[in-house]
Amino acid sequence: MYTQPELKKIIDTSLVNLSYNQESERLTDPVKYVLSIGGKRLRPVLALLVCDMYGDKIDEAVIPVTGLEVFHNFTLVHDDIMDRAPVRRGFSTVHTKWNVNQAILSGDIMAFMTNECLLQSPLNILQKVFRIFNKTAIEVCVGQQLDMDFEKATIVSREEYIRMIELKTAVLIAASARIGALFGGADDREADIMYEFGRNLGIAFQIRDDILDTYGDKKVFGKTTGGDILARKKTFLYVRAMEIASTEQKKKLQELYTADNDPVSKVREVTELYDQLRIRSFSESLMEDYHRSAMGFLEKAGTAADRKTELSNLAGSLFGRDN
Amino acid sequence: MYTQPELKKIIDTSLVNLSYNQESERLTDPVKYVLSIGGKRLRPVLALLVCDMYGDKIDEAVIPVTGLEVFHNFTLVHDDIMDRAPVRRGFSTVHTKWNVNQAILSGDIMAFMTNECLLQSPLNILQKVFRIFNKTAIEVCVGQQLDMDFEKATIVSREEYIRMIELKTAVLIAASARIGALFGGADDREADIMYEFGRNLGIAFQIRDDILDTYGDKKVFGKTTGGDILARKKTFLYVRAMEIASTEQKKKLQELYTADNDPVSKVREVTELYDQLRIRSFSESLMEDYHRSAMGFLEKAGTAADRKTELSNLAGSLFGRDN
Repeated sequence: MYTQPELKKIIDTSLVNLSYNQESERLTDPVKYVLSIGGKRLRPVLALLVCDMYGDKIDEAVIPVTGLEVFHNFTLVHDDIMDRAPVRRGFSTVHTKWNVNQAILSGDIMAFMTNECLLQSPLNILQKVFRIFNKTAIEVCVGQQLDMDFEKATIVSREEYIRMIELKTAVLIAASARIGALFGGADDREADIMYEFGRNLGIAFQIRDDILDTYGDKKVFGKTTGGDILARKKTFLYVRAMEIASTEQKKKLQELYTADNDPVSKVREVTELYDQLRIRSFSESLMEDYHRSAMGFLEKAGTAADRKTELSNLAGSLFGRDN
Repeated sequence: MYTQPELKKIIDTSLVNLSYNQESERLTDPVKYVLSIGGKRLRPVLALLVCDMYGDKIDEAVIPVTGLEVFHNFTLVHDDIMDRAPVRRGFSTVHTKWNVNQAILSGDIMAFMTNECLLQSPLNILQKVFRIFNKTAIEVCVGQQLDMDFEKATIVSREEYIRMIELKTAVLIAASARIGALFGGADDREADIMYEFGRNLGIAFQIRDDILDTYGDKKVFGKTTGGDILARKKTFLYVRAMEIASTEQKKKLQELYTADNDPVSKVREVTELYDQLRIRSFSESLMEDYHRSAMGFLEKAGTAADRKTELSNLAGSLFGRDN
């Protein structure tokens, strides 16, 4: 069976070997740039791990699941325009390095490059693969819209928040796991189990991201903390704080979130409020709940336990539990 | 056999019956809006006419070719952002009526709604349909990029211009005809002929659009003339003028195109220059050449002449030759 680093290398190679329309470098250069910046390649690697767990034959899956990474990067390019984000993974975003028009259009092209990858699925699963992909792609767009809506909303309930991150982040991880299962020859029941594994893992992963944005070690996390606070993002930390804060604390948090005061003191004051409310430990424990659910679904999968080791390692590594 | 108005009605109904994700009206309202504004539904109607010419059985094709209209509108929504166009078909554009972010995202969702439509193609042609669609979708993006590049370029050759409109406009009309042929059960040779029919028709159609933007009757054309001149678009009229203008005329045309003077006099002066250079009649004759080529390919199609009448009527109606 393949290890996670082996599969990451396979996906990186597959991304480099994507074919491009030759008539406009102005359009394909941004795509090559964004796909070369890196990242964990979580979605295709997860898909290949699931495929490998069931089927021991990943070759046919490599190009199709590469499409999941292309799609993920498509969403990042467009989201970064909408969020006016200047930097992603330590590099200038496409609309900053080029311009908004090229970012819209090179994002668009990635959506169709995704199709080209997926289209290389074997005919017997092609429709199933595309159906789950389309549904998921639309859900991811809806998740981004909800995320933007929430920036303007005063109150966001925990249910609304969880649904938003489920759509924006978790369903694509879930779909990756399901598509991997289809390539591995798993039946619908098994594919459903893997979807739930991915969905729960994805929610846990996003809650962790929220926690790290405020409490992460800059050296480990690779970006300055407090970005979500400054961008007025309704993170899980904020949502939870608003659940349990006193009237006075609520007022203060809302004021801090909307005021245009000094960024450093703003981040510090919001964090202090979170500390008073023990938001970090509560969030970590919710994250653990989702992570545990994910592992429960992995246990349910109908393959031998020793075939699950790599997937279990991946799930652990997402939460900083590498050995 | 079906007539053009009958097929337009079928497509309009199919567009109304599209299913939408129910979780974000903020995202689906712009899609419903843009799809309800109307237009000729040229691409799906053409596809169904070609299908009907070969096969006499359009039912299976209706939903998949509806996707071609959804895709076309996706490109309009994103192009209008890039071109900063406030109005389309007499209605506010999506980014004007809502905002740029919603226009990006509701455009994105239309790309995946297109996939959902195409996915309903029968399995025996599904890969062929998707392959031609993906290739075409990427080409349309490249065409839009070239169009934007040309706005900044001083000199655009006729070859470059024709290639740009081929990509931006003609290949989707060509692909629609090819997809119609596939649904009608035509073989690859016939599908190629129909592609060429559509490609030539599309180029003629775009040259006509360029002519009408300067010389059209506002009442018939539905928009104010001179828009391309004010947007500094390198239309065929401009490209041709730069081919044959004297050094002095070239200088004047460039100055007029780039200057920020009064719009009314700007349009008048550019038009006068075009008149001096007999640009209109030359452009019309080139348009006729492409139209004639298209009709030549239609003649080559391997079906009885009486099955070609509706397609021939459609081709005529695009050039104002309705009876």
